[in-house]
Amino acid sequence: MSRRVTSIDWVAAKVRFIDQTLLPREELYIDTDDFRIVGEAIRSLKIRGAPAIGVAAAYGMVLAVNDGRIRTDADCAAAFNTAWTYLAQTRPTAVNLFGALARMRGAFDRSCPQGISAVRKELLSEAQCVQQEDIEACLRIGEYGAALLPPGSTILTHCNTGSLATAGEGTAQSVITTAARQGKIKRVYADETRPLFQGARLTSWELLRNDIEVTLITDSTAGYVMQQKRVSAVLVGADRIAANGDTANKIGTYSLAVLAAHHGVPLYVAAPVSTVDFATASGSNIPVEERHPDEVTHVAGQRVAAEGVTVYAPAFDVTPNDLIAAIITDRGVLRPPYTEALASLKNSLVR
Amino acid sequence: MSRRVTSIDWVAAKVRFIDQTLLPREELYIDTDDFRIVGEAIRSLKIRGAPAIGVAAAYGMVLAVNDGRIRTDADCAAAFNTAWTYLAQTRPTAVNLFGALARMRGAFDRSCPQGISAVRKELLSEAQCVQQEDIEACLRIGEYGAALLPPGSTILTHCNTGSLATAGEGTAQSVITTAARQGKIKRVYADETRPLFQGARLTSWELLRNDIEVTLITDSTAGYVMQQKRVSAVLVGADRIAANGDTANKIGTYSLAVLAAHHGVPLYVAAPVSTVDFATASGSNIPVEERHPDEVTHVAGQRVAAEGVTVYAPAFDVTPNDLIAAIITDRGVLRPPYTEALASLKNSLVR
Repeated sequence: MSRRVTSIDWVAAKVRFIDQTLLPREELYIDTDDFRIVGEAIRSLKIRGAPAIGVAAAYGMVLAVNDGRIRTDADCAAAFNTAWTYLAQTRPTAVNLFGALARMRGAFDRSCPQGISAVRKELLSEAQCVQQEDIEACLRIGEYGAALLPPGSTILTHCNTGSLATAGEGTAQSVITTAARQGKIKRVYADETRPLFQGARLTSWELLRNDIEVTLITDSTAGYVMQQKRVSAVLVGADRIAANGDTANKIGTYSLAVLAAHHGVPLYVAAPVSTVDFATASGSNIPVEERHPDEVTHVAGQRVAAEGVTVYAPAFDVTPNDLIAAIITDRGVLRPPYTEALASLKNSLVR
Repeated sequence: MSRRVTSIDWVAAKVRFIDQTLLPREELYIDTDDFRIVGEAIRSLKIRGAPAIGVAAAYGMVLAVNDGRIRTDADCAAAFNTAWTYLAQTRPTAVNLFGALARMRGAFDRSCPQGISAVRKELLSEAQCVQQEDIEACLRIGEYGAALLPPGSTILTHCNTGSLATAGEGTAQSVITTAARQGKIKRVYADETRPLFQGARLTSWELLRNDIEVTLITDSTAGYVMQQKRVSAVLVGADRIAANGDTANKIGTYSLAVLAAHHGVPLYVAAPVSTVDFATASGSNIPVEERHPDEVTHVAGQRVAAEGVTVYAPAFDVTPNDLIAAIITDRGVLRPPYTEALASLKNSLVR
């Protein structure tokens, strides 16, 4: 039985989202009809996880055109463009954000000639599609990924890739929960994932809710547990996958990939096709967001670092394709060489 | 100009130590004539760093025999043995603890026939030797290590290996401060070092006091900064070096060693000869302490992890000798093969 959290939803003409910064201490759901609140929530990581960000941005656009002050087609276009620009600037790395916004632009362009109410209807319909597709993608990722794991698997995972990070069951975490239902998972090691503790706060909480054995470790313990042969596979999500398979994901993923390769442990990236950025040739072209130093120097409002120290706080790193054993998508499992595998996937989407 | 902190000292017949758990927020010095307070301080990491633990244990033994209630030689022997056993059980990995206690045992055995006041005098003298030798070892480590670094070096370091971790200038950090005085250090990256933030709290603070450019990163950012070619050498300390060069050090060191090897960056271990355990053949024989789960689940008294999660919290890991470019000791720089280099060092000590 899945005890999935709905991180983002459309309820009574509002966006409802859970504030992930308060979890697991407090389960607070926020209902809003203001796209700026959605955007601020993305920026401040109340809403996080590449697929969830995409869904949130899509619904944010619906809120923008639903504004009761809109009277004319010109008002509507202006509201659309303002919100679009605002939401596009919330976070730079997760490509699902831009993918969802592009889809909403398409929906707007399609419906615009029919007037405001057509726009509203079309945008809502498109956002619901983005959400529904993500729910289904999560299920398929789970099935495809679980098939890769033998019984008795001990998984190491990083950050949170669960129902909080998506509209559905998760990406890497969907693989874990699906494999667990098949009786294949012996134990999961969850990196705590500094600086914001998504592993300690969110992944641990979600896995415990699903009755999966989870052991929390500090990020720097990952190498040691691999050295002790306690890990049979590393499973991570993705914020953006380039056309050659290079993958941007939460800071620390690259270190895990090098460690996994050193220990002969496969590292699997799990992500929906919506996380693939076919327009970006390689990882070196992926913009990597830097976060505010306070996220490193402070924990729960308390300073943990020396005053005056300089901080380097990239939110993501980029794992080169040669360190990735497979990319588990909702369209199947991709194997190297990824440039060819992804090109073929792209062609299958166009057809 | 060095702005060295004296972490542990003998002042007016008492042990004076700085409570490192309060740094850098508060500089609290504690004076005590109770060996149990010294032992508790070691166990709770108020006193930490392998060489500093050794010096503290030595002075703790002096406190034990100085107890005013001791009337007879039998009292003195009983007090010595009680304190010895108590201090030996504070922490299992740092070999300097056991080395210092063995030296105090030797001093006791030597002076015992001459009565209580001779024992007191001999133990104080031996403890002062342990302290003075560490101060001098730190200086020599700094000189030997700095000679390995070219101008423009960018160093990555882990945990704290400074004046707080030793009686003197530090181990790996002495290399950094010495090289900095020679104008060779461009920048230092300090891992924050979860779970207890020794890098964020202590190393950053000490380096800033010494006017050295320091950039704080989360532990899992280390791989990414190496990938970006921002690191020319990794410098770490040691808690115990086995006879074959395998090195136990703060959890995360092994991950750094694998990452450094992957990027062709040398990893140097810096430690006094007192950290070498010639009686332990290899790293697999080094006991690795596990710490309380609360150190991972809580920060500054606040819970950061989901309730009920299992935690694996080894305090150290063991880096195999083949990932170590050199071991910088107070007796010179050792290169592979370490079994031979350390055997030859051992012979030179006996002569």
